[in-house]
Amino acid sequence: MVTETHFQKELEELKENLLKMAVMVDEAIRDSVRSLVKRDSDIAQKVFEGEDRINKMEITIDDMCLRLLALRQPMAVDLRFITSAMKIVTDLERMGDQAVNIAERAISLNQDPQLKPYIDLPRMAEIAQSMVKDVLDAFVTRNSKLARSVCERDDLVDGLNDQVFRELLTYMMSDPKTTTRAVHLMIVSRCLERIADHATNIAEDVIFMVDALVIKHHADAKEKEA
Amino acid sequence: MVTETHFQKELEELKENLLKMAVMVDEAIRDSVRSLVKRDSDIAQKVFEGEDRINKMEITIDDMCLRLLALRQPMAVDLRFITSAMKIVTDLERMGDQAVNIAERAISLNQDPQLKPYIDLPRMAEIAQSMVKDVLDAFVTRNSKLARSVCERDDLVDGLNDQVFRELLTYMMSDPKTTTRAVHLMIVSRCLERIADHATNIAEDVIFMVDALVIKHHADAKEKEA
Repeated sequence: MVTETHFQKELEELKENLLKMAVMVDEAIRDSVRSLVKRDSDIAQKVFEGEDRINKMEITIDDMCLRLLALRQPMAVDLRFITSAMKIVTDLERMGDQAVNIAERAISLNQDPQLKPYIDLPRMAEIAQSMVKDVLDAFVTRNSKLARSVCERDDLVDGLNDQVFRELLTYMMSDPKTTTRAVHLMIVSRCLERIADHATNIAEDVIFMVDALVIKHHADAKEKEA
Repeated sequence: MVTETHFQKELEELKENLLKMAVMVDEAIRDSVRSLVKRDSDIAQKVFEGEDRINKMEITIDDMCLRLLALRQPMAVDLRFITSAMKIVTDLERMGDQAVNIAERAISLNQDPQLKPYIDLPRMAEIAQSMVKDVLDAFVTRNSKLARSVCERDDLVDGLNDQVFRELLTYMMSDPKTTTRAVHLMIVSRCLERIADHATNIAEDVIFMVDALVIKHHADAKEKEA
């Protein structure tokens, strides 16, 4: 007979898979940026190989959620947990896509002399990775405070992205020969900013799940009033 | 007593809301690009106003889905329909965000002389809008063939985006004074490409729902073999 305990075990398994997927995505981001900073295109190759595992994990988790919804017909808190998990895997998978994007740009950039020392980009990556890690912890421990701290870090990443953009614009304007490299770097910066956005999306899901509060659009409305 | 017919009615209502939300997003994309092409920043204002309605609709549909899952405990086809709907609203809302992004760029661009005639960007927008429209039709009519045609159109948009990028790079390289405007236009192009990506994500969900086939990662794998 299926017991409550059995269902709890399945939920634990779901959490473990989500955390595993988050680790894969974290590695992909780290490797994509390392490939750029170390000017080592072999590391970029690892990101392409890892993408397949991330995609497979997305399917596994999605199937698991559908099965749990169909067979266990969960209510209230568990229902919200499972539907949130389905949204979260989508964000995680897209973060993986962004890492692939960065790895591709790294390979192009590594073929030319380095335009400038990379300082802000690794910093952005570091913050984005901390966001990915913490938001998954927030999800599995249902910790909305931690999720809110993830939302706050998004502003830091946005600020760095703006700074990188402005700096690269001045490079391009003073020396058009730098344009191609500068555009590649802008795209890397934008990819990192998008990874942070995905982490923020998850954080909003977590807060919604925990507090049943739709913080996202409230925050938007508040911003508009300001 | 709650009858099967009642549940069917609720599903119909869910479909109608999704279609309404798609219409709002379609208008947002259209207005954001019109604001750019007509050089009329008042039209961009409409996009900002519409964003709030799109966000509210996302919450309404999400709540509706959670309620249906909890109260009706749907099985098989209906279960997959509702969980897909929850993923779809997320994509629709993010398309709305991209339209806001375009509208913001339009306002900046409208303050300076026009860099070049806008030909590819409205074309991209047109294709992206057709993708949004068709993919929602594909969802509510469970038409995987139509969904596949949406995936195919994504390549067109990607191709146009590459073309726009290359063209704008040559502008920047030959005249650094054009750089700021060119970067704004690159971002508009990338926003349109991302809208098409979101439509493709939905198309993959629809195909998955209808054919229970995970086309997305199969296609990726195939691409890598080629």
